[in-house]
Amino acid sequence: MIENSYYSQDVHGPYELHDIGNLELEEGGTIRGCKLAYATFGTLNAARDNAILIPTWYSGTHKIMEQVYIGQGRALDPDKYFIIAINQIGSGLSTSPHNTPAPAGMGNFPHVRIGDDVRAQHKLVTEKFGVEQLALVVGGSMGAQQTYEWAVRYPDMVRRAAPIAGTARNTIHDFLLAQTLVEAITSDPGFNKGFYKSPEDVREGLLRHSKLWAVLGWGSAFFQANRHKLLGFSSLDDFITNFMFAYFGVMDPNDLLCMAWKWQRGDVSRHTGGDLRAALGRIKAKTFVMPMSTDQLFPPADCQAEWRLIPDAEFRPIETLDGHLALFGADPAAMSQLDKNLTELLASRA
Amino acid sequence: MIENSYYSQDVHGPYELHDIGNLELEEGGTIRGCKLAYATFGTLNAARDNAILIPTWYSGTHKIMEQVYIGQGRALDPDKYFIIAINQIGSGLSTSPHNTPAPAGMGNFPHVRIGDDVRAQHKLVTEKFGVEQLALVVGGSMGAQQTYEWAVRYPDMVRRAAPIAGTARNTIHDFLLAQTLVEAITSDPGFNKGFYKSPEDVREGLLRHSKLWAVLGWGSAFFQANRHKLLGFSSLDDFITNFMFAYFGVMDPNDLLCMAWKWQRGDVSRHTGGDLRAALGRIKAKTFVMPMSTDQLFPPADCQAEWRLIPDAEFRPIETLDGHLALFGADPAAMSQLDKNLTELLASRA
Repeated sequence: MIENSYYSQDVHGPYELHDIGNLELEEGGTIRGCKLAYATFGTLNAARDNAILIPTWYSGTHKIMEQVYIGQGRALDPDKYFIIAINQIGSGLSTSPHNTPAPAGMGNFPHVRIGDDVRAQHKLVTEKFGVEQLALVVGGSMGAQQTYEWAVRYPDMVRRAAPIAGTARNTIHDFLLAQTLVEAITSDPGFNKGFYKSPEDVREGLLRHSKLWAVLGWGSAFFQANRHKLLGFSSLDDFITNFMFAYFGVMDPNDLLCMAWKWQRGDVSRHTGGDLRAALGRIKAKTFVMPMSTDQLFPPADCQAEWRLIPDAEFRPIETLDGHLALFGADPAAMSQLDKNLTELLASRA
Repeated sequence: MIENSYYSQDVHGPYELHDIGNLELEEGGTIRGCKLAYATFGTLNAARDNAILIPTWYSGTHKIMEQVYIGQGRALDPDKYFIIAINQIGSGLSTSPHNTPAPAGMGNFPHVRIGDDVRAQHKLVTEKFGVEQLALVVGGSMGAQQTYEWAVRYPDMVRRAAPIAGTARNTIHDFLLAQTLVEAITSDPGFNKGFYKSPEDVREGLLRHSKLWAVLGWGSAFFQANRHKLLGFSSLDDFITNFMFAYFGVMDPNDLLCMAWKWQRGDVSRHTGGDLRAALGRIKAKTFVMPMSTDQLFPPADCQAEWRLIPDAEFRPIETLDGHLALFGADPAAMSQLDKNLTELLASRA
């Protein structure tokens, strides 16, 4: 265990913790007393049919979903819906390598899969809230991976699905891309196979990881349009230090790696012996597939190929220069397209 | 100095070495007795107007240009043209960190700029061959950077220019992208600030550098189309080990870094106080700007923006799934488009 004030009520609160008990993992191993951190917005109606579930992305928590995606008058409106944002395992708020006591924590934390998260989340929403149907599951990036997993694993429970900037089965290219992020961290001698004394020991690795995210996450069009300057940074160095590293540098390396391992192996076709068509064919949710037009991690073409295999789905790419990290919400036009799509999706099957 | 059998006549021959004397560098410092390695194909005609110059790209030598781009019946036909392929400083064949005696070599090798290369190449072609006019300068990636530098620096000497998959002024995004490649190497403790005993000491860094090149150089469409399998590799691991690392792992880390430093700072607007329009406006060569359609390093949009500033230029993107590394010639359709364009360019201004 390592103290890390970033993962705290001060920074991310208010949120609740729910102990779902022991979680047997797909890869073997058990998380004992697995705790999910979550926050809710709005009120569950009497019919219990206005619940929306939001899983989180790599490095993200429920907080950015609250700040960027949820709001009165928005598609995800707490006046209308009961919104449950659940932090993934390894997020730093839910059970994670850094907050798990020895010997199970740090470099010994077991491998977790997207499916483990979704089973844990299912326990939370059914046991804690008695929710048996979700009006919508919506998430970006790894949140999209979890959204797909929800729609394939629990097809009768998910009425609508909105995977944003993510895929149902990760591609070879994206696996390798994530591997370069992983190795930016693990190559730091201070990482010490996951048994560092403090994240500060892995500062250089986290900095390299931040730079790679800047290259891959934003992309060429973002910088060519000087979007980093429009966001208030005077130079590339300023942007790297005071935005990218300010963001990633406070996080726990093992927590990031726990999420990255899951991300690399996201694959709903594990339910159907590797048959992606069969897996996506299970989906009963009305689905809007929403890649970011300039995304290098989950390019529109990859998302489009999956969209064709989903029974009741629409392909709704979001036009933006911000690449994958348009998810951060710095491009208002992208957020506006997204809200429009989500509003339409929520109005369908009324 | 380090012995490295990769940089040898056995692997890259035949080639010649030409000593251009001391080269005063733009950044300060001097390369004493700077040697350029070059190979020629075909015969200089009596009018001395059939010379074609080919500079090399990052990690590349004249050999790949010979094998992939030059040939009877091709656009770059040694039966018609006198083709001079010159290896850039830092290529490992020309003067480079690894083959420079102490104390000037290895981690002490001075910073070189694209402009230094082009001045050195100018000396070679004028003094050695008496060539005062070039029918064409053509190169890919850093070869394109040198092509632009030639056309801007010696506008009266370059009749035609074909920058392929490269820019005249490097973008912020590409600078940062190259920096992640640099740091993949320098972060290896075995790199030892450039004073390793053997490239083998930097094996892990070179492997990470190879993986990054696979992510950035080929791109998602390449892997989605299983191009790596079509090239004869059974899996991603097989491709990384036996293609990417087989290629980069034998190279000298300091040599790669010498080239990367130049690449990051390629900028013809240094001639005009930062005014790119003025710099490109100097070009008298008929120019074909040829980005690769899926290039993540030098995306078509970046090349197109520069094309608009060149007086007599055509924008001829090459359609391919192979990204930047379509330059390797593994996509015959891309090579065919390229040849067609080069043939047309060479036929212009007849």
